[in-house]
Amino acid sequence: MFSCVGYAATAADASLRPFAFDRRDTGPDDVRIDILYCGVCHSDLHQARNEWHNTIYPCVPGHEIVGRVAETGTSVTRFKVGDMVGVGCMVDSCRECASCRDGLEQYCEVGFVGTYNGEDRQGRGVTFGGYSRAVVVDQSFVLRVPDTLDPAAASPLLCAGITTWSPLRHWKVGPGQRVGIVGLGGLGHMGVKFARALGAEVVLFTTSPGKVADGLRLGAHEVVLSKDADAMAKERGRFDFILDAVAADHDINAYLELLKRDGTMVQVGAPEQPLPVSVFSLLMKRRRFAGSLIGGIPETQEMLDFCGKHNITADIEMIRMDEIETAYTRMLRSDVKYRFVIDMATMPQTA
Amino acid sequence: MFSCVGYAATAADASLRPFAFDRRDTGPDDVRIDILYCGVCHSDLHQARNEWHNTIYPCVPGHEIVGRVAETGTSVTRFKVGDMVGVGCMVDSCRECASCRDGLEQYCEVGFVGTYNGEDRQGRGVTFGGYSRAVVVDQSFVLRVPDTLDPAAASPLLCAGITTWSPLRHWKVGPGQRVGIVGLGGLGHMGVKFARALGAEVVLFTTSPGKVADGLRLGAHEVVLSKDADAMAKERGRFDFILDAVAADHDINAYLELLKRDGTMVQVGAPEQPLPVSVFSLLMKRRRFAGSLIGGIPETQEMLDFCGKHNITADIEMIRMDEIETAYTRMLRSDVKYRFVIDMATMPQTA
Repeated sequence: MFSCVGYAATAADASLRPFAFDRRDTGPDDVRIDILYCGVCHSDLHQARNEWHNTIYPCVPGHEIVGRVAETGTSVTRFKVGDMVGVGCMVDSCRECASCRDGLEQYCEVGFVGTYNGEDRQGRGVTFGGYSRAVVVDQSFVLRVPDTLDPAAASPLLCAGITTWSPLRHWKVGPGQRVGIVGLGGLGHMGVKFARALGAEVVLFTTSPGKVADGLRLGAHEVVLSKDADAMAKERGRFDFILDAVAADHDINAYLELLKRDGTMVQVGAPEQPLPVSVFSLLMKRRRFAGSLIGGIPETQEMLDFCGKHNITADIEMIRMDEIETAYTRMLRSDVKYRFVIDMATMPQTA
Repeated sequence: MFSCVGYAATAADASLRPFAFDRRDTGPDDVRIDILYCGVCHSDLHQARNEWHNTIYPCVPGHEIVGRVAETGTSVTRFKVGDMVGVGCMVDSCRECASCRDGLEQYCEVGFVGTYNGEDRQGRGVTFGGYSRAVVVDQSFVLRVPDTLDPAAASPLLCAGITTWSPLRHWKVGPGQRVGIVGLGGLGHMGVKFARALGAEVVLFTTSPGKVADGLRLGAHEVVLSKDADAMAKERGRFDFILDAVAADHDINAYLELLKRDGTMVQVGAPEQPLPVSVFSLLMKRRRFAGSLIGGIPETQEMLDFCGKHNITADIEMIRMDEIETAYTRMLRSDVKYRFVIDMATMPQTA
């Protein structure tokens, strides 16, 4: 084992503070990564503050990790020291169930092991995430990050990126389709970029007049203000696919109405309460309402390769590690364009 | 025009009574049908009592029509006098939109013309349905009923049948799949028969212990009492497809949980109020919740041909025309196994 420094929450109402802990030595199948950057996901905040009522303290958040390989285990063939790599929301899964065999480890029937607050399958305790100087991860859950990408701006691809990429690909979004993206935040802004790059006609829906220009800059062909009833009425029945990236409670029936016959709306944000769905709206055009959870390892690699080819990364604001609480506060106000990323060079050497 | 006798509601609070009205003469593309039987759908009751707030009185319900061709128009080639034919929920549509061109007239972008309470596209007024001695319908909306089927028991195929057949076929239900049918009523009992005949492993969900034996007799491999929490828990994540035929408000999240990854639950009953959907349940296994509305003309014919081949009809209780109000009262109590069918020989000769 080696000593590592991170930032941890020690209780639901405690600020994140420097925290020293042990990481395992690099096993045969492991890759030890020196973390350069870690994106800040809303889940980090939920987990740190125990809003899902399952947090094990101390909790070191962070699952949008990019860094360089520092050491490889004896059985590791796919990575070598110095490679730029990424780790997302998962560090292990059962690898035997139908979903794991299909490369959809996020739907592992046994349950995947989260990058933080997860229970290690080899009995090595609770996992600690990317708000730390280093991490040791089984090679099967390590991704190659193209050298051409800015590694800081690439880090949000590991969660915000794959969460939007996976449904866009699964439902075969592409040329000739009119695609809606609901909400311009960390997820939504990646959804706009991906849908555009995949060749679709992209319409962004936002409540904020201040985000119209940005929506267009990020790749939307049109931006519709969702509070404008006339503008919404004009979009009825015009969409093949809608990706809803809003986690707050909102009226999804207003968007279901915009789908064509056989159109699908996919929720990637997870409102806490059940959402009222108008069955009538579904019936009248055989519409579908679905959910999608992050993405599997093969499709995450596919996305990173696509990003390398098309030069796609997140729009980020870099912060120092000791600015994390301010970042959380701003994130709660949606005051970030569009993802905070922690510069791990600002992590203290000792806790 | 010719004089016809039917049964009509003249107001929301009025009982159905004999009613004389004119039917159009047989035009070049028309088929005149002497009605033998008409099934009693819950929609008939909703419409007669103005529960959808759009009823035009007098209203002659009935859209599960089976009868014999009495006359054919000069351009009619597909039917001849004496043929056993059926008419379902639609008698016309725009025939030009994408859905009509796809043979999915029920999703006509302009709106299909209902068999009753519909606005005729040629300006001939409001349509009158199958609670009548005869009907004149454009040949494009007339179906062939296989001679081998009991015509009375075949009449519910035109609505209850196609409403369950269409989603089972669209979502490709077949061998190797575990399929749930929720609710054993007019729709549900057809869903059980079809899913079984299509080769699936069929599980019926019902709230009624009294329906277990019938569920098995109708073709279900298993029957689960949905109020039995332990039995429901055992079914979690085991279904490829669930057809929910319950129109009353009910907890659909209990069924969404039963779907496998990528499984679909389709609602064919239409609860009046929006249903609360657990987005978390959708997210965790990329599940889909969808709706489906009756079925198109080509797939209705496909179903009737399938029924002819597999000798499938509805389980019915035959009633006299003057028993319709009693039938409605019993239908409201779900006291029917499983569809009332009116014997049109009991229709008075004059109103």
